[in-house]
Order: sequence, then C-alpha cells, then structure tokens
Amino acid sequence: MSKTTLRPQPADSSPLAPPWTVESWLNHSGQLTLDQLRGRVVVLHAFQMLCPGCVAHGIPQAQRVRGAFAESEVAVIGLHTVFEHHEAMRPVSLRAFLHEYRVDFPVGIDAPGSDSPIPRTMQAYGMRGTPTLILIDRAGRVRLHAFGRPEDMVVGAAIATLVAEGSQELATAAADDGMQGGAACDADGCKP
Amino acid sequence: MSKTTLRPQPADSSPLAPPWTVESWLNHSGQLTLDQLRGRVVVLHAFQMLCPGCVAHGIPQAQRVRGAFAESEVAVIGLHTVFEHHEAMRPVSLRAFLHEYRVDFPVGIDAPGSDSPIPRTMQAYGMRGTPTLILIDRAGRVRLHAFGRPEDMVVGAAIATLVAEGSQELATAAADDGMQGGAACDADGCKP
Amino acid sequence: MSKTTLRPQPADSSPLAPPWTVESWLNHSGQLTLDQLRGRVVVLHAFQMLCPGCVAHGIPQAQRVRGAFAESEVAVIGLHTVFEHHEAMRPVSLRAFLHEYRVDFPVGIDAPGSDSPIPRTMQAYGMRGTPTLILIDRAGRVRLHAFGRPEDMVVGAAIATLVAEGSQELATAAADDGMQGGAACDADGCKP
Amino acid sequence: MSKTTLRPQPADSSPLAPPWTVESWLNHSGQLTLDQLRGRVVVLHAFQMLCPGCVAHGIPQAQRVRGAFAESEVAVIGLHTVFEHHEAMRPVSLRAFLHEYRVDFPVGIDAPGSDSPIPRTMQAYGMRGTPTLILIDRAGRVRLHAFGRPEDMVVGAAIATLVAEGSQELATAAADDGMQGGAACDADGCKP
Repeated sequence: MSKTTLRPQPADSSPLAPPWTVESWLNHSGQLTLDQLRGRVVVLHAFQMLCPGCVAHGIPQAQRVRGAFAESEVAVIGLHTVFEHHEAMRPVSLRAFLHEYRVDFPVGIDAPGSDSPIPRTMQAYGMRGTPTLILIDRAGRVRLHAFGRPEDMVVGAAIATLVAEGSQELATAAADDGMQGGAACDADGCKP
Repeated sequence: MSKTTLRPQPADSSPLAPPWTVESWLNHSGQLTLDQLRGRVVVLHAFQMLCPGCVAHGIPQAQRVRGAFAESEVAVIGLHTVFEHHEAMRPVSLRAFLHEYRVDFPVGIDAPGSDSPIPRTMQAYGMRGTPTLILIDRAGRVRLHAFGRPEDMVVGAAIATLVAEGSQELATAAADDGMQGGAACDADGCKP
Repeated sequence: MSKTTLRPQPADSSPLAPPWTVESWLNHSGQLTLDQLRGRVVVLHAFQMLCPGCVAHGIPQAQRVRGAFAESEVAVIGLHTVFEHHEAMRPVSLRAFLHEYRVDFPVGIDAPGSDSPIPRTMQAYGMRGTPTLILIDRAGRVRLHAFGRPEDMVVGAAIATLVAEGSQELATAAADDGMQGGAACDADGCKP
Repeated sequence: MSKTTLRPQPADSSPLAPPWTVESWLNHSGQLTLDQLRGRVVVLHAFQMLCPGCVAHGIPQAQRVRGAFAESEVAVIGLHTVFEHHEAMRPVSLRAFLHEYRVDFPVGIDAPGSDSPIPRTMQAYGMRGTPTLILIDRAGRVRLHAFGRPEDMVVGAAIATLVAEGSQELATAAADDGMQGGAACDADGCKP
C-alpha cells in the first residue's frame, strides 16, 4: 500500500485507508475517525516530536498546508507515531511541544504495538519512518504516501488534484466503497 | 484584469490573456504564442535579471514548477519585463544570466513601450512590478495574477487546480471564447 | 550583570561568572566547573529542548561554534534551563533530544529553583529566557550576554576576540581575581 | 600566496598583498589603495555580478561583515573580477546591480588582463574563481584566502583575530615591510 510516489495514484488502484488506532487526541475533543472526514481530502502527517526532520520540515509543511486550503475541503491531521525513545515522548511532553510550536490541528497519539516498538497505525499504513505524509481522497482511499521531505510545490499540487475531484467522483467512489467493503481493512493492515 | 489573488478565479469571470509582444526569445527558436500553447496550463513568470526578489525567489520557484509538472500539461514561460535600468539589462546580459542560473525554459524579452519605461506586455497585463506570476488556463484565460512572493504550496495548488480542468471544460471554454471574442484584447490591454 | 551586548565588554568592568548549580551532566562524566575550564574561553549556551528558537537557531549555532574553534582554546557547554513545562522536559527526554540532534558537547541540567520555576543557574546569571548565549573569558569573567538570536558573524567575532586575549592578559586577570574574590558570587546571584 | 585556509596564517609567513589594479571605483570617489587602508584590517570580497554563489552567499556575507565591525577597524572592499561573459557585466550593469542589491561599500572594477580573460588583480592574487574572500592584516599582509562559501562563524572569527592584533604588532610589521619591500609585488604577481 505504501509506495512513495509524489503524484496521487489513480483512484481505482488505490486501497482504502486503514482506520486509525489512536490512544487519545490532542487539539480535539472526542474521537476522530476517517468516516467522520469522508467527503474531504485528508492530509495525514505522521511525526515524532524528537525527529529533527519532522520539526524542521514536516510540521512546518503541515502548517503551511493548513494555511493554504479551506478546512471545509481539506482536513490536516497529525499522528504521533513513536517508534523509539518511547519514554522521552510521553503525552505530557507532546502536549508542551504542540503548545510551543503552535500546532493547532488535531493530533492523535498512535496506540502502542503489542509485540513491537512500532505503533499500530504506523504498522497498518506500512510507514517506513517519520516524517511520513499520507494523502487520503474524499472517498477514503490512500492516494499518496511519501516518506521524508517532499517539496511544498509537489505537495500543494497533489492536494489540489484531490480537492479537484468533486462531488461527481465522490458519488462514484462511494458506490465503489460499498463494493470493496471497509471490512477489508483492519488495524493491522489493508487487504484489497 | 490583474487582481492579486492566490486561488484561481472562476473561469467564467476571467478575461482572455492578452497576446505577448516579445522582441526575441531565448531558449526557444522562432516565435512562441499563447495560441500555440492552448490546451496546456501556462505559467508566465515575469522578472528582471537585476531584481533581487526575482533572483532569490521568483526564478527558483519557476524552476521548481518546471520540475513538478509534466511539460505536456504545463508550460513554464519567462518574460523579461525591464522597466528600469534598461541599459544594464540588455539581451547580452540576460543571456549570460540565464546561462549562469541554469534557466532552461523559454524566456521572451518584452518589447519596449513607445512612450513609457514599462514594456508592452507588462502594460497589457497590468503588472505592478517584478516578480509577477500569472497563471493562464487551458483555454487561454488569466486565472491568477500574483505580484511578489506567493508560497510554493499555494502556487503548486493553483496550477494543479487548473491542470485538473480537463478536456471537457476546455471544450466548453473554447465555445465561450468564440462568444467573448479575442478582439477585445490587444497589445495595449484587455477590455472585457 | 546581564546586559545584552554584542561585543565583549571590557574586562575590567566585567563580573566574575557565578558558579554553575547543575543537577547532573550529560555527555560528560563527573562534575564540570568553571574552575576546571579556567584558561579557556567558555561558550555557555542556555536552552530548553522544547524552545523553538533554541532548536532552530541556538543549538545549531553552538554546534557551529564547536566546529569553528579548537577545543583547547574554547569550551562549548550547554545548560538546560527549564523554566516552564517542567514535566515535559525531564532528563529522559533531554537525553533522547541530545541523541537525535547529535549534540555531543557537555550539557548540564540546571538545578530547580527552591521557590521559583526559574532554575538556579539561570537565576544566578540573570538570564531573561532561552536561548541565551554567555561568553566567559579565560579568567572567568562574563564578557558577553545575549538573549535571542545573535548573528554567527558577531558571535564568531566575539569569541575570537576573547581567544586573542592571551596568556599575558590572563596573568593580569588572575591577579585581579584575587582582589575581587570569588566569594562575591553565590548561586543566587553575583554582586560585584 | 593563495592557499585556502580558514584561519589566519601566521603573520611572519604571510606575503604582502599585491596592489590593486582597478579601472574605476564605484561607491567611492577617487582612487583607493592598500596604502591608504594600512592600519585597518581589509576584507576584500572578489565577485562577479552574475555569479550565483556570489549573489546568494558572498555579497550578503560581505554586507554582514560591514554590519558587524566598526569602519575604523575594518574596511570592506568589493572587487569585480570578471573573467567570463565580459560583455554581460559592463560597468553600467554593475552599477545597477549595486544599486538594486544595496551594496554601499566601495567596489573596484578589476582591470582587464592583457593576454588573458582573467583580470589583473585576480591574477596578481592567484584567485581560483568567485566568490573569493581575502583578509589583509593591519600591516598589509594576506593572512587568509578563501574560495567559495566559508561559514560566517569562521569569517567573523578570522577578522576579529586580525583586529585584535593591535598597534604593537603593527609597529613590528611596518619595520618588516621596509625590509621586504613593496617592489617585490607588481600587478602581475607577488614574488617574495
């Protein structure tokens, strides 16, 4: 599922995004699920607060995405995917980090893996590390998965391409969803 | 015609782009006209080689546009709009500049104004200065006009939005063009 | 004591640096005191691991200082002066931070204040916040105290100026020290 | 004479700086010679106005030097050493360039070479290209010669080291000068 491509993949060959297994949310009250965001493009930014590339590049880029697109069209969601130094990045530290860096979009804390240092949503999406940027289209399909530092120009273009897929495509896609079935994806992975 | 907006304006309220009045072309043999580019999105980057904001921001951004989009979909065109220090920025200097900065997209030298230091295409588009970025859609309409330093994220998104307007819109627009008439725009300006 | 100046103050009007009250050291075994460093220029970089200005500017600058000067002439010492979000920046988090950001110079954890969120060394030096850069000359006097983001050019120049004060000045200064007396400085402040 | 070192070389093994062979000066009326600057540290910044590394790094660095040191101690001098695209970088273009980039320190136009595209002062100093930074001490000796992009931290430190060499060293050096003789250097090179 998780090829690194810098243009959105075709909709019909893209898997449904696995659900998120999140321990708790910051900057958001209650739960937040992909289903709730259906109809909008979702920009999922996976990071660790002590990952230098995330702090210098990934998070500022996510903040620029937030500034460049309307919230009614594009949801920006952070995911704290701690896979090392777990004791160093507890929720109390993350909370202060978000405050100091003025991150105000919702951030989910990825649930710990049962037999692995890799947290569960990170596993489900097959992420290679942090920062990882994942674009999910209006119909809930993973259309782009990028590890590292994609350029703003490319990210802005990819998001706008998905935004431009309007209600018509959405209707078609919703029908497809019914055929593919959400059940094919669980927290451990997504099988088409 | 030349409002500074950072999202493409609606197609039906956008004027046709005035033709270019170019003295000579670099990085391109023969003439280059908007008509030849019809069907592609045109990214027109107006600059002066001794404008610090152009050198530090505008030209590198145009180069990133070139790298981020397919040439079959997006044409990147430079326009050297000298409105001051004319003797300092003659074609021989521009040619060396393009070589040293590795600019390899076509660059037109805007034709001098008859009674004004402002060159003719710059006048026709109502540009306020340099750098100016103008996005022209597949049907030849000016959809975005930005003076200064728009963010890469926003520029990438705007271009992709126009790219996403496919052949269907193009067909409709071509019909509209017939109604609006290209005659409304001449080299001195464009009157809706 | 703590004026923000960007050139070293004259030696004869500069106070002795207060001793450091450090809970524990990272990247160094055992204690580390100003007395041990006498004869070298000391670059003291006070920071908090969740302070964006420290991460983006202060710490990279301290690392460039480390690279630009010989260790035999210049000691670069970090001081973790946590005055907010104390629970978020415990030693376990700091340790991971130093690892991830590849900080390998010694870092002392400033001892908590007794009746104040401000830690003790931070109080003693009258620091206004983080990042703070303090330059201490070969004779142990505070010669520059800068809050915020001084330019590399200025910082490099100031350190080199102190390095250039060789053994002769040191000898004179040592005699002066005897007259001024280290006792005038304690952990709560320094009174000339 | 022209080793690339990032710390000032010892005074006693450093050659006298060759005189400058300058066609004309901008930002300065009349001639400007090294003799006139004796007693101050001279920061000589050689550049070409169409050299991207000069525009992005060298010139802004020279401007930061100008801001960081007192004019009474440090002279910042530009040298336009055109060795390619001669027609593209005529004085009229350079003048506009200096205006647009707000360069206000004196800039000399290096005199053309007789049988070479390399101008005469560039030859005399054995410069490898642009940007080149040369530091000349209070006694007129070349103490540092750096091609490319030395860090601000290192440049600031090197200049301050030379500034710290006060009147005493200057007196000694002046005596040395008498022995070495300025005649050993002419416009084509410097022979110890």
